[in-house]
Amino acid sequence: MSLLLSITQETTATVDIAAEVEKINGDMGMLWMLIAGILVFMMQAGFTLVESGMTRSKNAVNIAMKNLLDICIGSIAYWFVGYSLMYGDTSNGWFFWSGLMQGEGADLFFQTMFAATAATIVSGAIAGRTKYGTYLIFSLVMTAIIYPISGGWQWQGDGWLTKMGFIDFAGSSIVHSVGGWAALVAAFLVGPRIGKYVDGKVIPIPGHNQILATLGVFILWFGWFGFNGGSQLAWGGADAIAASNVVLVTNLAAAAGGLAALITTWIWYGKPNLAQTLNGVLAGLVGITAGCGNMTPIGAIMAGFIAGIIVVFSIEFIEKKLKIDDAVGAVSVHGVAGAWGTLVIGLWGVNGDEAIGLLNGGGAAQLGTQAIGVLAYAVWAIVLSLVVFGILHATVGLRVSKEVEIEGLDISEHGSIAYPGKRQREIE
Amino acid sequence: MSLLLSITQETTATVDIAAEVEKINGDMGMLWMLIAGILVFMMQAGFTLVESGMTRSKNAVNIAMKNLLDICIGSIAYWFVGYSLMYGDTSNGWFFWSGLMQGEGADLFFQTMFAATAATIVSGAIAGRTKYGTYLIFSLVMTAIIYPISGGWQWQGDGWLTKMGFIDFAGSSIVHSVGGWAALVAAFLVGPRIGKYVDGKVIPIPGHNQILATLGVFILWFGWFGFNGGSQLAWGGADAIAASNVVLVTNLAAAAGGLAALITTWIWYGKPNLAQTLNGVLAGLVGITAGCGNMTPIGAIMAGFIAGIIVVFSIEFIEKKLKIDDAVGAVSVHGVAGAWGTLVIGLWGVNGDEAIGLLNGGGAAQLGTQAIGVLAYAVWAIVLSLVVFGILHATVGLRVSKEVEIEGLDISEHGSIAYPGKRQREIE
Amino acid sequence: MSLLLSITQETTATVDIAAEVEKINGDMGMLWMLIAGILVFMMQAGFTLVESGMTRSKNAVNIAMKNLLDICIGSIAYWFVGYSLMYGDTSNGWFFWSGLMQGEGADLFFQTMFAATAATIVSGAIAGRTKYGTYLIFSLVMTAIIYPISGGWQWQGDGWLTKMGFIDFAGSSIVHSVGGWAALVAAFLVGPRIGKYVDGKVIPIPGHNQILATLGVFILWFGWFGFNGGSQLAWGGADAIAASNVVLVTNLAAAAGGLAALITTWIWYGKPNLAQTLNGVLAGLVGITAGCGNMTPIGAIMAGFIAGIIVVFSIEFIEKKLKIDDAVGAVSVHGVAGAWGTLVIGLWGVNGDEAIGLLNGGGAAQLGTQAIGVLAYAVWAIVLSLVVFGILHATVGLRVSKEVEIEGLDISEHGSIAYPGKRQREIE
Repeated sequence: MSLLLSITQETTATVDIAAEVEKINGDMGMLWMLIAGILVFMMQAGFTLVESGMTRSKNAVNIAMKNLLDICIGSIAYWFVGYSLMYGDTSNGWFFWSGLMQGEGADLFFQTMFAATAATIVSGAIAGRTKYGTYLIFSLVMTAIIYPISGGWQWQGDGWLTKMGFIDFAGSSIVHSVGGWAALVAAFLVGPRIGKYVDGKVIPIPGHNQILATLGVFILWFGWFGFNGGSQLAWGGADAIAASNVVLVTNLAAAAGGLAALITTWIWYGKPNLAQTLNGVLAGLVGITAGCGNMTPIGAIMAGFIAGIIVVFSIEFIEKKLKIDDAVGAVSVHGVAGAWGTLVIGLWGVNGDEAIGLLNGGGAAQLGTQAIGVLAYAVWAIVLSLVVFGILHATVGLRVSKEVEIEGLDISEHGSIAYPGKRQREIE
Repeated sequence: MSLLLSITQETTATVDIAAEVEKINGDMGMLWMLIAGILVFMMQAGFTLVESGMTRSKNAVNIAMKNLLDICIGSIAYWFVGYSLMYGDTSNGWFFWSGLMQGEGADLFFQTMFAATAATIVSGAIAGRTKYGTYLIFSLVMTAIIYPISGGWQWQGDGWLTKMGFIDFAGSSIVHSVGGWAALVAAFLVGPRIGKYVDGKVIPIPGHNQILATLGVFILWFGWFGFNGGSQLAWGGADAIAASNVVLVTNLAAAAGGLAALITTWIWYGKPNLAQTLNGVLAGLVGITAGCGNMTPIGAIMAGFIAGIIVVFSIEFIEKKLKIDDAVGAVSVHGVAGAWGTLVIGLWGVNGDEAIGLLNGGGAAQLGTQAIGVLAYAVWAIVLSLVVFGILHATVGLRVSKEVEIEGLDISEHGSIAYPGKRQREIE
Repeated sequence: MSLLLSITQETTATVDIAAEVEKINGDMGMLWMLIAGILVFMMQAGFTLVESGMTRSKNAVNIAMKNLLDICIGSIAYWFVGYSLMYGDTSNGWFFWSGLMQGEGADLFFQTMFAATAATIVSGAIAGRTKYGTYLIFSLVMTAIIYPISGGWQWQGDGWLTKMGFIDFAGSSIVHSVGGWAALVAAFLVGPRIGKYVDGKVIPIPGHNQILATLGVFILWFGWFGFNGGSQLAWGGADAIAASNVVLVTNLAAAAGGLAALITTWIWYGKPNLAQTLNGVLAGLVGITAGCGNMTPIGAIMAGFIAGIIVVFSIEFIEKKLKIDDAVGAVSVHGVAGAWGTLVIGLWGVNGDEAIGLLNGGGAAQLGTQAIGVLAYAVWAIVLSLVVFGILHATVGLRVSKEVEIEGLDISEHGSIAYPGKRQREIE
């Protein structure tokens, strides 16, 4: 009798250990996600610097105001409706504002930053000629509806792309290419900046501060460790190792992307070009975002390297052949490199020790699935953006007047300039 | 006999689990506090950028030197005397330098960053006309004595405000309004910049770099996640969930503050204004700092939104009605929004599931307590600042000469300029 | 029989607890290292800003391209060969690319950032006159071979310096002075910038943006918490307390270094100088890097304070007496302060409660060992740098033409300028 009791207590003790370990792993996972979300937040600062640095100073305040409001509007919109729309957590009602459920704070915070990122990608492409109010409405629709609905196809847990076996670990397609294709539509509809295409010639419009752009890329790279690493959504045991490897291969791909763009521009232009090398780093990051949980280090380096080559030619192609004026190369960096990063999993991805790519002997099935996902996100983003920007075009209008554009949006849209003082007028 | 032994071992094993879990929770809490402290450190960089970006380039070196020395002096002063003064840890003697106690490293580091923040708030308000040495002495007194003594009223654990039931989770009053009221006194005593008030007119003196100011606000927002989230002082179980929610509502309040200032300036000035939107974000952050552990998400959004409206009118009021020249709006952002953030807990705060505010049915008791705390910190900061700046005024002097002010403090106080090269003189 | 079973289960349960705690500690350690590595990554951005801010705008693109490629090349080179060369993990073959071993992701990532730091130190010293391709080759050799081999002497675990009792916790000698002495050799061989020494006179060449330099120092300080704190390589129990103390004393030493340089320049030049105060902070950080695990707070403050004095005079000495043109003071900040930081352990270092320094009664043995280590890293870095730069000098050449240097490297080496627009030419 007493012995029986002893055995019962034993069992309880053993169960306790497993339960406690699970709780601790949960707590460590929450800590990692929260910190990762904080890192992702800083990407908003990175985008601000890259976009303002790569465009003219007369529109720098406007760029800052767009990026700032992306996170302001996005945080509230995604909390109010986007999160429950995306993750289908309707137990609490369709709208999330009815109250925060216990323990979801870190996840909601983390996911909010992704929604804001998807929106902010668009702002750079249409810099220098878009009405501010119009942009804000699009940003709201993006974070509240467009991104959450398609994001749920994969990340909700049993969406149709998940069921099909589609892989997009941290959002090459779900976040970046959705933002990139929306940017393509927006840049096409709003039209090129005055002076960009003159008599059939393509005129370069240089940015105003490459050092700020460089700092912006470093900050984005920094934040991306949270973007990709945090997408493990857990820590402890295998998750700790997996998330660490995600960060490692993210860094390798970014490095390879920068190196590839450097080499490409050195060969192609005769000189290693800073702006394109920065874009190469970003393309490497976008290119590893889908596959960062399914790539060997060497696979990640190859994915990033090719992304860094692709981005240089894609920017040239969109600017010179399609004659679409994407002021900062956002379509190439996020859309094209995002598609590449999604597809490459089907070429040389791995799933643990198992090869799942066409070129490493894993067959063609994964590549096909990845292609369907890439197409689905492209179609969704393009159609929805056409609808929304079409409505905005027909109502509030997309573009500022010629006079406002030439003067710069900062003065007419915001009543101030980025660099007040005597020099400002001399700068342009 | 043998059976008895078995039961004894059992008990030991069970106790071990609880003890180990507690140790691990302690370790996770230390990790979170350390990382949070590192995030708070970056707020010094954020303040530097906001303050220098919002003032003229001829004083930018001086701003950098003030913010840099705030953390240099503050780190040493707070370690030497402030920490033990604040937390009453006199077991080790009144002065902390007698040695670091085991396990207090993360806490001391975290708290040091708060002391430096309280000091650095003052530097922006009095930019452009204050003697450098004078400022350093005030910064020393602030981090060594003023902030620690009043901070202890609440955070020491059984101070008089704690006993009264006062709530200031992360320091809307304890840190921000103490800094803000000190800034008010300083700006009043040192007087307005030459050219600010001419023939009864208020002349705007624009900053020199709004992009740096924007980056500064992003960095402050980033650091604030550590400022508020780390104030949970623990991680694991309920603490992990609570700290995550703190970060979530901090972000929501900041977003709402920015949105509110945007809307306010759009209506009031006719155009959405960047500098005020930046201040709105900061006011939202200050406004949630006291209540971030006692607010629902919707409550946080309302608190931040109202803070973002208040700050716009408060800046106008102080500049145009009181005719006090606060060069960067520090009094409104930190003092006024800090008071608001402390009071709002008494309006719609919650304590877990329990309502404690006047407007959500929790009665008026908490509001009264909050008002006493707000008043206590205001009186303390104003009186002590009057005493210290009064002494400084009567001895070393507060203000540089007219010639030095017109030339800019950088040359005469520091012998160098922020942007050397041909352009500097043209900039002003 | 049944009783025996019970006891056996007991034992298993107890073992389980210890094993689980160990696993959790391992996971927490991995989390801390990963986050610390992410912080260290940002130091690359800090170096970019410090170096470009402290040099002329006509070479700012070149600076950005050097720092950017340091991390791109370094990440790949260190992964490919450096890591296994340094840690002698030859079980997986000499080259690491054969695959990532389970669980090494966080460590490899963390160590990669150190290799990139060692390389990037060199770039600032030789700013403004060095061929870009030449620099990249050196950066590759540094991260792949020079740094890993000598790093292994101490950090491999049973290298000859470890066996001797040498202490260099986070790399004052291993990272910083290796970078600093390589910078000395590079600056000597490449020669001074045109206009630096004219008719026996030393002409100051001011940087172009002291606010960016200040931001860079704040970012470096921020990253250094990861650099030093992460070098604990673990978290949990004594490691958590130790790593927290490392961060605390790192902050105190940085603060003391800045304060010391402020005071020194105030006395020596008559005015508190920003550039030197920034160098003082960095010297304080370098000066505590070796001893951050072996210093009391007061010991750290003294180490940092003296480093902040040393760096001011060292910069003057190298510039005016040796007439070596180190454009940003890298040799003094990293080489000289690195040597000081290594030696100071032998003066007033502690090992737990035990004194190990000459001046605190621990005898002279440790000081002798530290001196041997300082010497070993100096000889290694100088000899290897002489060999590599000698070969580069004889083949591809070190220095750009006079015309290119006067025009600025940005245009001729990279085909673009940092601040495009009308103002750029006026700036210089």
